[in-house]
Amino acid sequence: MDVIELSKGLDTIWVVLTAAMILLMEGGFALLEAGFVRQKNAVSIIMKVFVDIAFGALVFYFFGFALMYGQDAGGIIGTTGFLIKGDLSHIALNITHETYWLFQCAFVIAVISIVSGAVAERINFKAYILLTIAMTGFIYPLAGHWVWSLNGFLGKLGMIDFAGSAVIHALGGFSALAAAMFIGPRIGKFSADGKVNIVPPSNLPLASVGAFILWFGWFGFNAGSTLSATNGTIGHIAITTMLSAAAGGATCILFTMFRYKKADPPMVINGSLAGLVGITAGCAFVSDGAAIGIGAVSGIAMVLVTEWLERRQIDDPVGAFAVHGISGSLGTLAVGLFAMPELTEGIGKGYYGLFYGGGWSLLGAQALGLVTVSVWGFVLTWGVLWLIRKIMPVRVSKDEELIGLDVGIHGVPAYSQEHDFLDYDRLRNSR
Amino acid sequence: MDVIELSKGLDTIWVVLTAAMILLMEGGFALLEAGFVRQKNAVSIIMKVFVDIAFGALVFYFFGFALMYGQDAGGIIGTTGFLIKGDLSHIALNITHETYWLFQCAFVIAVISIVSGAVAERINFKAYILLTIAMTGFIYPLAGHWVWSLNGFLGKLGMIDFAGSAVIHALGGFSALAAAMFIGPRIGKFSADGKVNIVPPSNLPLASVGAFILWFGWFGFNAGSTLSATNGTIGHIAITTMLSAAAGGATCILFTMFRYKKADPPMVINGSLAGLVGITAGCAFVSDGAAIGIGAVSGIAMVLVTEWLERRQIDDPVGAFAVHGISGSLGTLAVGLFAMPELTEGIGKGYYGLFYGGGWSLLGAQALGLVTVSVWGFVLTWGVLWLIRKIMPVRVSKDEELIGLDVGIHGVPAYSQEHDFLDYDRLRNSR
Amino acid sequence: MDVIELSKGLDTIWVVLTAAMILLMEGGFALLEAGFVRQKNAVSIIMKVFVDIAFGALVFYFFGFALMYGQDAGGIIGTTGFLIKGDLSHIALNITHETYWLFQCAFVIAVISIVSGAVAERINFKAYILLTIAMTGFIYPLAGHWVWSLNGFLGKLGMIDFAGSAVIHALGGFSALAAAMFIGPRIGKFSADGKVNIVPPSNLPLASVGAFILWFGWFGFNAGSTLSATNGTIGHIAITTMLSAAAGGATCILFTMFRYKKADPPMVINGSLAGLVGITAGCAFVSDGAAIGIGAVSGIAMVLVTEWLERRQIDDPVGAFAVHGISGSLGTLAVGLFAMPELTEGIGKGYYGLFYGGGWSLLGAQALGLVTVSVWGFVLTWGVLWLIRKIMPVRVSKDEELIGLDVGIHGVPAYSQEHDFLDYDRLRNSR
Repeated sequence: MDVIELSKGLDTIWVVLTAAMILLMEGGFALLEAGFVRQKNAVSIIMKVFVDIAFGALVFYFFGFALMYGQDAGGIIGTTGFLIKGDLSHIALNITHETYWLFQCAFVIAVISIVSGAVAERINFKAYILLTIAMTGFIYPLAGHWVWSLNGFLGKLGMIDFAGSAVIHALGGFSALAAAMFIGPRIGKFSADGKVNIVPPSNLPLASVGAFILWFGWFGFNAGSTLSATNGTIGHIAITTMLSAAAGGATCILFTMFRYKKADPPMVINGSLAGLVGITAGCAFVSDGAAIGIGAVSGIAMVLVTEWLERRQIDDPVGAFAVHGISGSLGTLAVGLFAMPELTEGIGKGYYGLFYGGGWSLLGAQALGLVTVSVWGFVLTWGVLWLIRKIMPVRVSKDEELIGLDVGIHGVPAYSQEHDFLDYDRLRNSR
Repeated sequence: MDVIELSKGLDTIWVVLTAAMILLMEGGFALLEAGFVRQKNAVSIIMKVFVDIAFGALVFYFFGFALMYGQDAGGIIGTTGFLIKGDLSHIALNITHETYWLFQCAFVIAVISIVSGAVAERINFKAYILLTIAMTGFIYPLAGHWVWSLNGFLGKLGMIDFAGSAVIHALGGFSALAAAMFIGPRIGKFSADGKVNIVPPSNLPLASVGAFILWFGWFGFNAGSTLSATNGTIGHIAITTMLSAAAGGATCILFTMFRYKKADPPMVINGSLAGLVGITAGCAFVSDGAAIGIGAVSGIAMVLVTEWLERRQIDDPVGAFAVHGISGSLGTLAVGLFAMPELTEGIGKGYYGLFYGGGWSLLGAQALGLVTVSVWGFVLTWGVLWLIRKIMPVRVSKDEELIGLDVGIHGVPAYSQEHDFLDYDRLRNSR
Repeated sequence: MDVIELSKGLDTIWVVLTAAMILLMEGGFALLEAGFVRQKNAVSIIMKVFVDIAFGALVFYFFGFALMYGQDAGGIIGTTGFLIKGDLSHIALNITHETYWLFQCAFVIAVISIVSGAVAERINFKAYILLTIAMTGFIYPLAGHWVWSLNGFLGKLGMIDFAGSAVIHALGGFSALAAAMFIGPRIGKFSADGKVNIVPPSNLPLASVGAFILWFGWFGFNAGSTLSATNGTIGHIAITTMLSAAAGGATCILFTMFRYKKADPPMVINGSLAGLVGITAGCAFVSDGAAIGIGAVSGIAMVLVTEWLERRQIDDPVGAFAVHGISGSLGTLAVGLFAMPELTEGIGKGYYGLFYGGGWSLLGAQALGLVTVSVWGFVLTWGVLWLIRKIMPVRVSKDEELIGLDVGIHGVPAYSQEHDFLDYDRLRNSR
């Protein structure tokens, strides 16, 4: 046993454990979304999460990872590493390529899970499988390549995004927005005269515990992104993550008490998540105080953008765009304001925020990168759905939507109080 | 890479991972409490858990941590460390102050979450926010200072409390008792003639999984309290934690089968938790066998005290006092009986339990500390609620209580089977 | 601080954290089973999980561990280590015996939890406690001794089972089959003329999140089985676990879309679990590609065997045999086909799969071991239930079954929408 071996073991278990925590976030997404949608669609949204994790992992294994982290071509795309094979010598980490893959795989699954919420209660299940393949095999890997791979052009231009406010959340959020707009609102969400109609979430306790599971997983998401247990910033990352989430939650409690005269549970749930999303880019780079500010602003922005989307007649059932798209964007830009010299020196020279004497260069790189990634996510998602529509409907039938996707598509209700067994034949004959 | 750096990294990920596990316990508390209360209050109790984690973290960041672990003044209070700044040189750990803060932050949030259960279904939400601020910013930090800080007077007197049977659970439990008594029972809980009325828990599967999540988190709570991965007692702590919880659960299964002629699910759930609470003080200091005994006694005591409280017309909806106050007290005292010389030599000389030749001194210190902390928790909570009542009601209106806090205060039901969108205007006009 | 001490600390936290993850799987089992059964039995199945974890831990502490890992007698049984005491010098690990016990304890609890699902909705609670004691104290410890202890006869014959496709899952699955057959189908499950009647699961969102929690825990189950953080295969284990689970899930999505014209949620949930079960034996020994194949075959086999069992009028309410028995068997045999020389060299010479030039010897050992363990599990479970029936009914009364075990046995419903307190006396008088 020597120090090298110990160091490899330490980093390996750190990355495996944090990857497992991120993968548990799929349980969090499932609960959050099942709790927010109507009861008649609670299983269908969870089936989408199963698509995310099952198809997402396989697609990312077969080619997504290669396009993202393979040998670079032109700063645009990776070209090796299909099935984690071929020349990956440029990835020289203390952990194996397989361990690295697992962590990255947990990330890609999170991205498509963001999108799943925005198309809830109406997307055609087969079309969703195709969208998942496109997102996890192409759309996200390329954007990730640009920012996070060794020679990605956005990274070269100076953009930094520690754990993915832009690459994961803004991309996922703008993709979610495109999908929500492309597919259109749920029947009855907006009246003919433009009135916004609401329906209460079906199961807020489930949604809440989904948020707590996501919060737990986020420590894996952010702190695990060091990929090394001896990275001195882990404690700082964990505390900024905690403070930003707390600020997002506390702000939404107070802000909704002021604005709606009541602490609004769905907004408080999403406010905590907004704080987590917002700090994801800067968790290693900004101060505790900045983290609190980022969380608070992310929370309030989430509330306002949720309202704005509804006024624009855009139907995003679980607030995927407001939480991930907006807070991810704010968090990405905040790095350009608050990145501290002493916290970024580990990644190179000159990553100074505007408020720390860095001038406009970092902020400019962040803005350019954010716009690139967001436009890419929006346009590609729109384009993929447009292509899918050429071969199949992207939306369930009106009957299926009205009866609910659980029974309509998957043939089983989410909740049943059935006390005794059904006689199938009796049932069939009674039709 | 050298041994020092590895050691720091190892301890850091240990503390960050266990802190995350403890924070996940908030999801456990949320489920446990939402499952135990009536359906009409399931969201409101979860909103309190959001207050715990969001306000608790911020308050503890701004000043709670400083009062608890800052430079000591008179053995009573800390005076530095606001925003984790200022002179904290006396905290010389292998982990950073920020990492240490995160772990302690997870603890303080657990304390207030204990209280949340006792005031369920009737406390005014704004008053609860103020109580949270007082608990996380002052009441708990001072008690914690006395026992756990370098110069705290109870620690100096010889009290030991490894992971907080007294500091967390007895304090939280007696605070919960004070709050439950101050606010009074729920409408209908006790008939005018003193009869105890019951209502079944709304969602026992959620409550159960809450208990399993808490059980998981407890390994972080107890074993993580070593603050060091190379502490040789981690394995022992984990096994005593497991055995005590198992004993608490098994005992409550058998005891309720004997006493009520049925294995009583809420009692089994709380019995497991009682076992976990009971072993929290002594997990590192007592033998496996003592752990089983502590768990078994904690479980039975929890059942009896739950019954006793009801006879006393004290309404503690989720059993916060019986689980945390009583088991925490028993566990604190048990250290004075069962602490083994070979298991306490790491912390200094003379920490021998009565049954291991230590005489009455350790038991005396434990009893003194327990009484001090419990009285402090009870009196301060009562006092704070008394002060809060000067400026606002501490209890919701009768109408709000009868309709339920979810719709009454937060404007949304916990569960909805609503199938289609509501037309807001139609709804408004139909009133 | 030196390297030895660091190494011990590293391995200790690895094993404690992964053990905690496995123990959290009890929460997953509870949710999965409570979601799959009818609402009237949701609490009763969770009470069985409490029996598993509470009685299982104590029994395994008192004697199960000794029989499994104590000093060997004849390759058949362990003879020391009761209360983790006595001569255990043959267990020479980098972690303490107590830490090792905790990990093994998490395993034994998983085994009995597999069985709990197959007897859901009809077993007598007291009989279940006795069955738990037999399983965790004798049936499983002996089988485990044969395969995993230093001198166990199946291990000596060349059988390998990394994390327990055979020892945990095939044993548990065949025990579940025996119990399901012995106790007989639920009233109404099969009509007199042999028709299979169905009832929808009561709560699929809970079942789904149970699966995600199990998936998370499985990383602890498989990767933690290294018992050492510096074991170079951890990353490989984690990725094969992930890929097999994903393949099981994806295959069941596609296969049920083809077979039933709909992605069937319960089958997708169980398909992911089948993938996890299947890879458990070979996670460290087979390639990524083989892992995908194992997961896919396990998923399809699970669907077909679920159908076959129903045609045979065997009632296994949550699919315990199809998921654990079948996938565990397939996974055990798959090692004999796919074990790669370079991945098994760490455990000794000659563990080559048939497809890697190993001939039939490894496959033969796997088959022999599988049959031995499965027959043992089936026969002993049948025998124990037969013995139990001598002293008490193994099945609840018809009335209790029809009213449901929650109210019938445990006196409380799983879910209650009760709005106000019941006056006990009024209730009693109204009977």
